Amino acid sequence: MRPLPSIDQLVQGILAGELVALSRAITLVESQLEAHADLAYELLGRLMPHAGGSVRLGITGVPGVGKSTFIEAFGLHLAEDRGLRVAVLAIDPSSQRTGGAILGDKTRMELLSQHPRVFIRPSAASDYLGGTHRKTRETLLLCEAAGYDVVIIETVGVGQSETAVSGMVDFFLLLMLAGAGDELQGIKRGIMEMADALLITKADGDNQAAARKAKAEYEAALHLFPPTASGWQPRVAMCSALTRQGIPEAWELVQAYLQHVKANGYHARNRQLQLRQWFREGFSEDVLHWLAGSSVLGPVLEQLEQQVLRLELHPQQAVRRAIARLQQGWTT
Amino acid sequence: MRPLPSIDQLVQGILAGELVALSRAITLVESQLEAHADLAYELLGRLMPHAGGSVRLGITGVPGVGKSTFIEAFGLHLAEDRGLRVAVLAIDPSSQRTGGAILGDKTRMELLSQHPRVFIRPSAASDYLGGTHRKTRETLLLCEAAGYDVVIIETVGVGQSETAVSGMVDFFLLLMLAGAGDELQGIKRGIMEMADALLITKADGDNQAAARKAKAEYEAALHLFPPTASGWQPRVAMCSALTRQGIPEAWELVQAYLQHVKANGYHARNRQLQLRQWFREGFSEDVLHWLAGSSVLGPVLEQLEQQVLRLELHPQQAVRRAIARLQQGWTT
Repeated sequence: MRPLPSIDQLVQGILAGELVALSRAITLVESQLEAHADLAYELLGRLMPHAGGSVRLGITGVPGVGKSTFIEAFGLHLAEDRGLRVAVLAIDPSSQRTGGAILGDKTRMELLSQHPRVFIRPSAASDYLGGTHRKTRETLLLCEAAGYDVVIIETVGVGQSETAVSGMVDFFLLLMLAGAGDELQGIKRGIMEMADALLITKADGDNQAAARKAKAEYEAALHLFPPTASGWQPRVAMCSALTRQGIPEAWELVQAYLQHVKANGYHARNRQLQLRQWFREGFSEDVLHWLAGSSVLGPVLEQLEQQVLRLELHPQQAVRRAIARLQQGWTT
Repeated sequence: MRPLPSIDQLVQGILAGELVALSRAITLVESQLEAHADLAYELLGRLMPHAGGSVRLGITGVPGVGKSTFIEAFGLHLAEDRGLRVAVLAIDPSSQRTGGAILGDKTRMELLSQHPRVFIRPSAASDYLGGTHRKTRETLLLCEAAGYDVVIIETVGVGQSETAVSGMVDFFLLLMLAGAGDELQGIKRGIMEMADALLITKADGDNQAAARKAKAEYEAALHLFPPTASGWQPRVAMCSALTRQGIPEAWELVQAYLQHVKANGYHARNRQLQLRQWFREGFSEDVLHWLAGSSVLGPVLEQLEQQVLRLELHPQQAVRRAIARLQQGWTT
C-alpha cells in the first residue's frame, strides 16, 4: 500500500466524487492492519452524515441465472437512460476458494465497467464471512458519500451472505430462472421470503411461455408467505437482458417500492434498525474475540472446555463457571 | 410445581428408568426459575457420564409430509419388532403461536404414545429459540441416562431449528413428498445438505411412480452436493406408513450409517465437536446477556447505540469504544 493521504484529504476527495480517493478509502477499510482500522473508522465516522443518500439494492440468484448479464443491462439502463451514478459491490463466496471468480465477474460486465458514471468493486477475498460483510457495508457508505445514486450489492444466493446483505439494503431482488427444477434452483425458501421482488431472467425466445408460467406460480407461492414488515406485497416480474424487455420496469418496481416504504415510514425505520443491528453484531463478535484472547479468561475457558469434553461437566455448568469467573474480574 | 425430590433421588430414579423421575427432571430442566437452574445443571452434570448411549435421530420435513404418521410407524417398528426403547422429542415453532399444535401431535401419535417402551415429550412452549434448543439437548441427555436406545428429535423443516438440531444428533433424516412443486416443498437447500438420508413418504398406491421418479431426481441432486464431513454418501429411500413398506429399511439405513461412522471415527469426533459447540454457544449467549445487563456497561452500550442512530458515530467506532470501556473495568 502506498503512503496514505490524510483523512482530511480522503474526506474531501470522496465528497468531491473522486475515484482515486474512493478506491484508496476502500483499500484502507479493507486493510487487515490494526493501525489502519483506527484511521478507517475515523474516516467512516466523518463520512456518516454524508452517507445514506443512495438506493441500496441487494441482488441475488444462483450461478447460471444470469446475474452479471442482468446487472450489466440494468446498470447501463440506470447510468445511460436515467443519468444515475451506479456502484456495484460483489460478494462472492467462491472468491475465497478460487480467488479468481471476482475478476472474472468484472470482466463479464465489460460495458458497464467502462461507463463513466459506474463504479464496480469486487469484494476483497477474506477468510471469514463476517469480515466480508462488514467491509461491504462500509464500502457501501463510502460509495454513498461519493455521491452514487444506486448501490448494488450482489451475492450468489446459496450461502449465508443473503441474510447479511438483506440487513444492509433497502430492496432485495431475487433473480430466478424459469423451468428449472427444485434441485437446480437451489434457492433457499428463506431467501425467497426476504425478497421484495422476484425477477425471472432470460424471458425471451422459446423461454417466454415457461417464464410466464413460472411467474404465475411464484405469484401464487408468494401469497402464501407471511406479510412483510414493510407492508409491501412482493412482486414477480420477467425480463430479458438480451431484448432489454422488463429492464426499465425492474427499476420502476424499485421506485414503486421506495414510494411505498417512504410513505409509511418503513424506509427510515428499517435503516435505523440496520444500524442498531450492525452495532450489536459488531459488539458481540469483538467482545467474544477479546475474552477468548484474554490472558486470564482464555485459559479458564480452555480448561472448562476440556472438562466438558471429558464429560466431567455439563456444557451449561461450564458456561456458568466461566461467567462467574468473568464477573469476579469485572470491577465497578 | 410440586416440591422437588432431592438430586440423589432424581439421579437414582432416572438411572432406574423410572418415568416419573424422568418427567420431573425434564420439568426441572425446563423451569425458568434461577434457583432451579443450579439444581438442573447439578443433575445434568451427575448424569453426563451415563448419557451418550442412544442413537440420536433428527427427523424433519414440511407440514403435510406425514412426519407424525411416519414417526408413529417407525417408532412402533423399533419398539415392537426390535424391542428398542424409543423417546420422541418434538420441537415445533408453531407451538409458540398456537400453543396447541404440540398436544395435537401427541394425540396424532396415539398408538405410539401408549406403547410401554416409548416416551413422547412435546417441547415446552418457549419464547426464544435458543431456549428451546438448549432444553431439547438437555432432555435428550436425560432420556439417554434413563436408558432409551433411540431418541428422535422432530422439527418442522422450515425454520432455523434444523441447524440447531443437526448440531445435536448423530443422523439427520429429511422426509420429502413426491411430486410436490418447488413452492410446496418449502425445504431449504441448506437442510437437504444436512441430511444423511432423504426418505420419500407416502410411496403407496397411485403415488408410487411419482415417488420412484422423485427418488431418482434427489439421488442425482445429492451427487452434486459437496462431500459430507462424515464421508457418508447420503441415501434416498421411499416408505409408506400405510403399507409399512420401507419402514424396517429406514432403520437399517440408520444402522448402516452408524457402522460407517463408528468405523471411521467420525461418530465419536462429531459428538466431541457438538459438546464443544454447545459450550461455546452457551458462553456467547450468556456473556452478552450479562454485559448488556451490567449496571456500568449497560448504559454505556445504550448511549453508544444512540450516537450510532444519530449518525454521530460509525457502528464499528462505537464497538471499539464499548470494548475499550470493558477492558478498563476488567482486572487481572
